[in-house]
Formats: sequence, C-alpha cells, structure tokens
Amino acid sequence: MATIRFSNRKATTTGFGTQASNQGERLVRKDGSYNVIRSGMPFSSRFNHYHDLITMKWWKFYLLVITFYTSMNILFALIFMAVGMEQIEGDLGLTTAEHFWDAFFFSSQTMTTVGYGRTSPIGFAANLVAAIECLIGLMSFAILTGVLYGRFSRPRAKLASSDQAVIAPFEGGTALMFRIANARSNQLIECEAQLLMSYIDRATNRREFETLTLEYNKISALALSWTVVHPIVGDSPLVGLSLNDLKEMDCEFVCNFKGFDETYSQVVYTRISYNSNEIVWGAKFTPMFHRAQNSAATVLEVDKVGDYELMALPTS
Amino acid sequence: MATIRFSNRKATTTGFGTQASNQGERLVRKDGSYNVIRSGMPFSSRFNHYHDLITMKWWKFYLLVITFYTSMNILFALIFMAVGMEQIEGDLGLTTAEHFWDAFFFSSQTMTTVGYGRTSPIGFAANLVAAIECLIGLMSFAILTGVLYGRFSRPRAKLASSDQAVIAPFEGGTALMFRIANARSNQLIECEAQLLMSYIDRATNRREFETLTLEYNKISALALSWTVVHPIVGDSPLVGLSLNDLKEMDCEFVCNFKGFDETYSQVVYTRISYNSNEIVWGAKFTPMFHRAQNSAATVLEVDKVGDYELMALPTS
Amino acid sequence: MATIRFSNRKATTTGFGTQASNQGERLVRKDGSYNVIRSGMPFSSRFNHYHDLITMKWWKFYLLVITFYTSMNILFALIFMAVGMEQIEGDLGLTTAEHFWDAFFFSSQTMTTVGYGRTSPIGFAANLVAAIECLIGLMSFAILTGVLYGRFSRPRAKLASSDQAVIAPFEGGTALMFRIANARSNQLIECEAQLLMSYIDRATNRREFETLTLEYNKISALALSWTVVHPIVGDSPLVGLSLNDLKEMDCEFVCNFKGFDETYSQVVYTRISYNSNEIVWGAKFTPMFHRAQNSAATVLEVDKVGDYELMALPTS
Amino acid sequence: MATIRFSNRKATTTGFGTQASNQGERLVRKDGSYNVIRSGMPFSSRFNHYHDLITMKWWKFYLLVITFYTSMNILFALIFMAVGMEQIEGDLGLTTAEHFWDAFFFSSQTMTTVGYGRTSPIGFAANLVAAIECLIGLMSFAILTGVLYGRFSRPRAKLASSDQAVIAPFEGGTALMFRIANARSNQLIECEAQLLMSYIDRATNRREFETLTLEYNKISALALSWTVVHPIVGDSPLVGLSLNDLKEMDCEFVCNFKGFDETYSQVVYTRISYNSNEIVWGAKFTPMFHRAQNSAATVLEVDKVGDYELMALPTS
Repeated sequence: MATIRFSNRKATTTGFGTQASNQGERLVRKDGSYNVIRSGMPFSSRFNHYHDLITMKWWKFYLLVITFYTSMNILFALIFMAVGMEQIEGDLGLTTAEHFWDAFFFSSQTMTTVGYGRTSPIGFAANLVAAIECLIGLMSFAILTGVLYGRFSRPRAKLASSDQAVIAPFEGGTALMFRIANARSNQLIECEAQLLMSYIDRATNRREFETLTLEYNKISALALSWTVVHPIVGDSPLVGLSLNDLKEMDCEFVCNFKGFDETYSQVVYTRISYNSNEIVWGAKFTPMFHRAQNSAATVLEVDKVGDYELMALPTS
Repeated sequence: MATIRFSNRKATTTGFGTQASNQGERLVRKDGSYNVIRSGMPFSSRFNHYHDLITMKWWKFYLLVITFYTSMNILFALIFMAVGMEQIEGDLGLTTAEHFWDAFFFSSQTMTTVGYGRTSPIGFAANLVAAIECLIGLMSFAILTGVLYGRFSRPRAKLASSDQAVIAPFEGGTALMFRIANARSNQLIECEAQLLMSYIDRATNRREFETLTLEYNKISALALSWTVVHPIVGDSPLVGLSLNDLKEMDCEFVCNFKGFDETYSQVVYTRISYNSNEIVWGAKFTPMFHRAQNSAATVLEVDKVGDYELMALPTS
Repeated sequence: MATIRFSNRKATTTGFGTQASNQGERLVRKDGSYNVIRSGMPFSSRFNHYHDLITMKWWKFYLLVITFYTSMNILFALIFMAVGMEQIEGDLGLTTAEHFWDAFFFSSQTMTTVGYGRTSPIGFAANLVAAIECLIGLMSFAILTGVLYGRFSRPRAKLASSDQAVIAPFEGGTALMFRIANARSNQLIECEAQLLMSYIDRATNRREFETLTLEYNKISALALSWTVVHPIVGDSPLVGLSLNDLKEMDCEFVCNFKGFDETYSQVVYTRISYNSNEIVWGAKFTPMFHRAQNSAATVLEVDKVGDYELMALPTS
Repeated sequence: MATIRFSNRKATTTGFGTQASNQGERLVRKDGSYNVIRSGMPFSSRFNHYHDLITMKWWKFYLLVITFYTSMNILFALIFMAVGMEQIEGDLGLTTAEHFWDAFFFSSQTMTTVGYGRTSPIGFAANLVAAIECLIGLMSFAILTGVLYGRFSRPRAKLASSDQAVIAPFEGGTALMFRIANARSNQLIECEAQLLMSYIDRATNRREFETLTLEYNKISALALSWTVVHPIVGDSPLVGLSLNDLKEMDCEFVCNFKGFDETYSQVVYTRISYNSNEIVWGAKFTPMFHRAQNSAATVLEVDKVGDYELMALPTS
C-alpha cells in the first residue's frame, strides 16, 4: 500500500470573507443563524422539503397537514364525480352539492382507511380510484409518521443567554462577560465555548477575526449557569479600547457553543452573537441560583440569566 | 479569508459554583442526575413533551395512552350526541346512556380507523366530525409510533455499581475503589471514567473540586467488571485524611462514565456518586467472575458487583 | 487488570493499491463514489435491501411501491379465485375477468385495511387468506414507514463544487485551487478538507499518493464559499510540473471533505475528484457573494461556484 | 467557578482479568462477540426486548410476528366467545368450532383495523372488547414499525476477514498478517485497527496483553482490501517464537476494528479473533483485485479475502 506524507500544518478560518464592502453587517443573527441568503442553487437543492417540514413551527405544520388532507379529499371527490357517482353505492345525494359532499366524505373514509362501507365503490373505475387513494393515504401517513418523529427527535440546544454582554471588573482588571444557562430539562454535558471577535480594520477596510482567550472554555456539565469570561489583559485585542471604539470598528462577538445532549445522545451546536450595541460597559451579573428551601437541591432561576447590576470599573 | 489566532489555553471547570452556602448538599443524586431544580424557564421550554414521553416509566406511558384514548372517545361521543344521533345510521340506543355508548363505540371505530360500518355517519355534520376524528386518530397514532421508537432506541448505559466505595489495601498503601459492571446485554466499548472529589474547604467556606488520578481511566471494553482505583499516594488530596475528615468536609465523589454502546452505535454517559456515608474504610471487593463449568466462556455475576469483605489497612 | 503497552506509531494509508497495472483509471468518480466493483461477496451481503431502498432515486422508489402494491393484489386476487369466489360475499362478477377485478379490488381493500365490507370473506379459506393479507399489508406499511424515514433522515452533504480546479496566481507564486459551497439550506459547521494527489511514477510503474498541504484545512462554518488552496511552493510535488506532466503521470486530485450538519446533528463526508483533464492552467475564481441590496445580509450565488476568469501566471 | 486540576496520566486496560485460572479460554468468539456469560443481573435488565428484537435473525423475527398475531387472535376469539357470540352480528356459525372461527376472524379484522363490518359487535361488552383490541392492534403495529426501522437502520460493519492469519515474509524478515475487506456495499471510511495479543505467561500463570505495532493502523477508506501487518521485528513479543510456543502460551490475537459507515453516518466497530490454531506459518495472501475488463474501474473479489499460498520464510 501507498504511504501518505502528512503535513503538520493545521490552519482554521472562519468561513467569512475579509472584504468589508462585500459582506452584510451582522454575521450571526440573534437567533444563532448565519446572516446569509443563498441564490442560484441547483433546482433540486433549492427545496429540501424534509428540512423545512421538521424545522417549521408547529402551528404551520398542523395547518399544512389539514390543508393537505382537505385538498386531497376535494381532488378525489372531483375525480369520483367525474367517474360517475352511480359507481358509489350508498350515495344518497340528489343535487350536485350533495353528490360532492358524499364523494368528499367517501374520499376521506378511503384515504384514512376507515372505510365504513355505507358508501363503497361498485364500478371498475371507482374501485380503481379508491385503490389508488388508499395507497396514497397510507404513504402520506407513513411520511407523516417519519416527519413527526423527525420533528420530535431533532437535537436542539436551547440556551438561555443574557441579552447583553457586560464589561465587568475581574481580578483587579476588567473582562468581557456574558452568561448562559440551559433552558431545557435535557442535560447538556461536555460543553465547549469558542469566542470570536469580528471587526473592520479601518486602516485596510478589511474585516478581521480574532479568537478571544476564555477563562474556561470547557465545562463538564451545564448543570447551573455558565458565565463565559474573556479577561481583558495581555494580548487581548480589547485592551485599551472604549465602547465607542467598538462601535466604530463595527464590532461583533460571536460565541460558538457545543455540548452533548444526554437525552438525545447527540452533539448540539448553537451560536450567540453580541454586537457593539449589546455591550454594557461597567456591570456584573447577579446570582441566579440558591439552595432550595425544602430540599438539599440547588434552584436555578433561568429567567434571571440576563440580570446584571451596574458597577464602576477599576481605572486602568 | 481571515485567519484566526488561536490560544492554547484549554481550561475546564465542573459547572458547579464554589460558594458553599449557595448550593444544595449533594451535587449528583444516586440515580446519576444532577441535584438541580430549574425555575423561571421560558414557558415554551418548560414543557418538553417528547423528552417526558420517552423518559417516563412504561406503566405511566401505557396509562397515558389509555387515558388519552378514553378521553378522546368520550369527547367525540359527546360531540356526535350534540350533532344529533339521528345522523349516525345503525344507532340502536333508546336511552341517553345507550346513545352515549353507541356514540362512544362509533368514535372508537372511527379513531382507530377500524370502521366496521354497522354504525356510520349519514348527515353532513356527523360525516365532518368523523372525517376530523379519523385524521386526529391517524396523527395520534403517528405520534405514538414515533414516541415508541424514541423510547426503544434511546441510548442508556445501565451500569451496575457497588453501593459503597471502599478504602482498600493497594500496592503496599491504600486506594479508594468502587466497582462497576454492565447490567445490560449491550456491549460497552471504549469506556472512560473521570473521578471528581468535591468538598467544602472549611477555611474559606468554598466548595472545591479535585480530579482524582486513576490507576486506569480507559478500558477497551466493559466485558467483565471494572474496579475503578484511585491510589492514595503522592499528591492525592486523600493522603492523611480519615473517614471523619471526609464527613466534616462534606465530601462527595462523582464519577463521570462514558462508553460506546455497540448495539445503538452511540456514546452513552452516566454518573455515579458516593458521599462520605457511602465509604467503607478497610475492605476489598470479592471476585465476581469465574470460568464457566460447561463451556470455555467466563461467567460474570452482576449481582455481586457490590460484594466486599472487610480487611485491615496497612498502617501508613 | 492487565496493562497494555501502546505504540506511538500512527500511520495512515489511502486504502488503494500501488501497482498501477492492477487498478482501474480513476479512483473516485465525479459523484464522489469509489470507482470499485465488488464480486464474489457472500450471498447474504450481496443484497443490502435497506441500503438500496434508501439510496435509490425517488421515481424508482415510487415505481417500486406501485409495482409491489399491484403485484401483491394480483397475487392475492388469484389466490382468492383459487379458493373460490363464492367465499367472497358481494362479488357481483359474472365472467372470469369480472371475478378477477372483484377479487383484485377486495384484495386492495384488505391489504390497505380500508375494508369497506361491501365485499367480504365468508368462507373459512377466504377468511384465512384475508387475515394473512391484512398482516402482510400492515408489515409492508411498517417497512414503508421505516424506509421513508430512512430516506428523509439520511445525512447528505450536497456540495456545489467548481467543475474545474485552477492553477492560479497566489502570493507571488502559484497555487492549485478549487471552490466549494453548500448547495443545501442545512448549515455545515466544523468543516475539514484533505487533499490527496494520486499519480503513476513512470520509473517504477507504481501508483503513488501524496497529501497536499492546504492554506487552510479547517473552516468554522461553510456559511459562504470556500476556496481550497494548495500553494505550489516548498516541497509541494507540483513544483516545476506542467499540465502535460500531470497528464502523463495520470494524475488525480481527490479531496476528502467532512463537516457537521446542524440540522441532522451528524457528521457528513463527501469526496471531490479532479483529474488532469479538469485542470485549468492560469485562471482564478470570480467573486460569488455580495452584500444584499435591501437587507444587512450577504447573498451567496451558489451557481457561480465554478466561475473563473483566465489570467496569466507569474513566470517562476 | 472551581478549577479542576487534571492529571496527564492516561492509562488503558483491556477490561479482561489477568488470573488465567479465573477465565474461559477464548476471549473473543469468531463472530466478534465477547466470550462472557452474565448471571445475576437485575430482573429489569435481564430482558432487553428491543435489543433482542433488533438483533434476532429475520426468520425468527417473522415467526415471532406470526405467533403473536395468531395468539392474540386466539385469545380475543376466546374472550368474544366468553362474552357471548350473540353480541357479534353476522356470526353465521352453528357449532362451537364455527363460532370460534367466526370470532377468530372477527378478531383479526379488528386487530388489523380492516373492519369489513360483515361481522360487527352489537352488545356493550363485545363493543368494549373490540375497542380495546383495536388499540392493542394499533400499539402493536406502532411497535412493529419501530422495531423494523431499528432492525434496518442498525449500523453494522460486515467485514470479510481471512479465516487464517499468516506468518509471511516481510521486508527481509517476517510479519503476522491477516486480510479484511468490506463485505457490504456501504462505504467504510476513516478505518482504524488495533491488534492485541493475549497469552498466558506460564511463569506467573497470569494472562498478559500486548498491543502489537502495525505497519499502518489507519486507512482513509476500505475501498479495496486491507492487509493488516504486524512486522515481527524490534520489540515485538513474537520475535523468536515458534508456532508451538504460541500454542503453549494459549495465544489469541484480537483485532479491534473501527470505521465510519457513510450510508448510516455512524461509527461501526467489530472484532476479529485468531487463536494459535488459526495461524498459517509461512504463507502470503494472493491478490484479490484487478482492473475491470470493460471499464476503468477496479474489481474486488471479496470471496478471495482468505486466499493464500504457502511460501518459505527467510531464516532469521
């Protein structure tokens, strides 16, 4: 067999461009999605139905199911009427509207396979249409089952994160901090955070990216809250900058979060973004957990994740 | 593209706080869950139905299915009665109670799509209600299928672990030991253990955490038993401590276990916790496997995982 | 327990042979699959129905479902006719053809469990056949549900890649470049690329493999496009080679791509291959993203992934 | 937050004991499963129905489905008879046997929800039993769907491996070799092998384990065959040993194989074991792939994976 010579060079890039004029303003939206619109995708790729079906909101999904069911029944009712209602035994209707509703309900009984049989097909054509409709009903239902399972089992980290990041006092100096907590009852373990700072270098008009060093970038379990801390010391690009500087640099802090969801046994990812308007200069987060009164447990108040109090920063 | 400067600092924390007064007593319950109660979660996150449905006990789950089925049939029976039982062909009832039961059983025949047709809807309103009930029946059943699959396929490591940890003689000195075995027929491979010691530093009243060095922290397969061993030597925080010291320090040993389940092809995690009341000072575990009498195989007696015999420790 | 001595030697090979005469021409086809045909596989392994069912094209899959449904109904129609149509109550047919269609439609009503009941089995044999057909119908439908879910949930990276690789000017010298973008709406994060060069050493007539050093081999997210760049400098095997040399060496560039699909929470892999006829000597890719006119987002034009313009290379 | 001090000691063990007299003969069976029998497992863990249902052979699984279907129908037939057949409209039977079969087929029509309605429940008790049976039918079918999907989607590496390992000439000396190939049409990529040697040290009567150094222990893709090679040089424990020595030491070679299955997007593991009776001293494997005659592809003959020819070894 053939040997491969490996290089040791392992370089990573963000996947964003550097030409400031080429790109939109915010890289990551507040919901954690990338602020990118695609165009010109190949036709077959443009529609990823399954992806849409499992990510759409529940009310839209239910509306879609009801619309599909109604439309299919209207369609088959019209087909049965075209075939001739004399081929549907038990059709008691006299007017066209009555025929339609008999055909409509017969269709619904066929598609759901309930098949009471009070109305039933007797002619060849009606029998054929009914045989086809049953199959379509079963396949639609098989797809529905798969999509519902897909919706349920899709892994999602739902992090509660503070609306603002703060510049807080930290070990005699200052630090950039924001706080996250798990907003679901799933257990997130082996969590990691990576904090990127994106800004426009006004000298070169290029967008630059820096990874900010974190006090801790791993946590065994997100059982309580996690205050992510970037100390503004040493070679931190934030050293000496003011809030106005951040705004002029069109600064954005993007946190890539990764954890293992014990319930679904899957790695989940999410992103949190703070732009320069979402920074509070001189504040610290207030406690959000305490010992339970009636048990030996700890109580975590998830809605307090963004609570902070203003406080003076040490003058550097 | 933009280059990222990476820092080499990789620090991990437990995700628990250090203020002793702020937190409950035990960090990890005996069943391996974190001893944390959440409050103030956003309304939509408070209910994670799928999570509840796949983790609830089987008898509760079956009871829920039966309750749902009965309630839906009662509800639709009442709707059919409100619509008018003259719209249900084949209803033989004379009294209201008899009408109710005819409507109830007609509903059950509709919802399960069995649709015998001895009773069947003839009016517009009854037909409409029946068409809706069929769809609800099919969707409920689709959800049931997904949830049952979710229950079945959820990866779970079920470890048999010794009820107590022991301080045992080890290589001339002593060691903290506990023993685990796989209580399921699934094969667990590439297993890892990490042992944390949590205690309250009475000088600072802060909760401190130490990772305890293990004799082995990886095992190719949990085919037999695994005695996890922390030798009390060198810089072990247990050197020189007595059982009373551990109790005064409110000591808790938490083992994070990780393995790969070959049947489900997924990584599984579990936790084991021993507090100071679950330590036996001076004991060793007795053998739990032997050569099979009639075959060349090895027999593992899972129920003996906690069996130990008392024995004197070497005086240090 | 027994300790294992571990060796530090970690060597990797491509899995392809080195005897040039032993192997086919192209290692990887344009669709990313390996250009290998298997023979002599054990009978049970030769057919991996599930694999075929979830990877076949949709129109083939639907055709298969319809064919199966029709064939089963024909088969059971013939069985019911053999059993005797006097056992099917409601059979109105007079001729053999009419009997067949009555049996055919009765079969379809049984297999889909619609069971109108206008035709129904009355004899023992017909009842038995119908009871068996129901079960087969339910199992087929269970399989259909599983396969449909398998088809939907199968993770696939669909990369748009440039049809050609180019030799482009790069930092004063030249570089081999090709460009990829995500052709689906799924988010691909933590992407990695590895570029192999395979060629025949005409001196030894052996196929050799080299890993080519990349400018970046990791990317945080494939949010925009990624131009994979191998600088032709230093110890690159391409230094000093012309396009003719590459053709004579039967050269092939294989890129192994790996990413994490956030929607499916799974690692996806794909391969891209360029042979010497798919290299443009002296060209560079033209921009494929720009700032959106009406929003702060960035627009990515996926169909421009292969657009390049010819340009002179620096003379080395 | 509390910092954790991490130790650097990373030690691995096999998970097998070292007392030779305590354990069975062969550690790993020829089918790759561990040669261990469990006893004394907690009652709830002893039965992992889902695990059994998805791993049992297909004919057993189908037999189980048919047995369940028949048994349930017999059970409900008896319940309907106990309730009174006058509550089943359409029951034409005169003798008890005829009643039984009418009840049996009515039950099958209820459980599969086909519900023709020629026979249907009219009394309260029969209606209640039928309503319960429908629900049981639907739940059984939901379970069937989940189990069938579980059976299909379970990741399995099916390796074709040579029945024997050989001691072959290698780079002037000798090497232990065996050969594997992928027996399925799934693509296995990023494959790894680890080779353990287990033997009894007759001096101490302890079972010892050694990891054997491999020429290559990683392979980018198992597209063709892979001859796993352990060169018998340097500190290899096989240096100087004869076949008789291996037999006296009760030697067993266990290969842990790991790969990523592209179709299922999951990591798969398997094990291969050779004991001293499965070693051929002085042989080499013969080629198993060649260039296709009519295409540019390579043909892999999977059934030749174990083909070898005897050949003299260099005298050391």
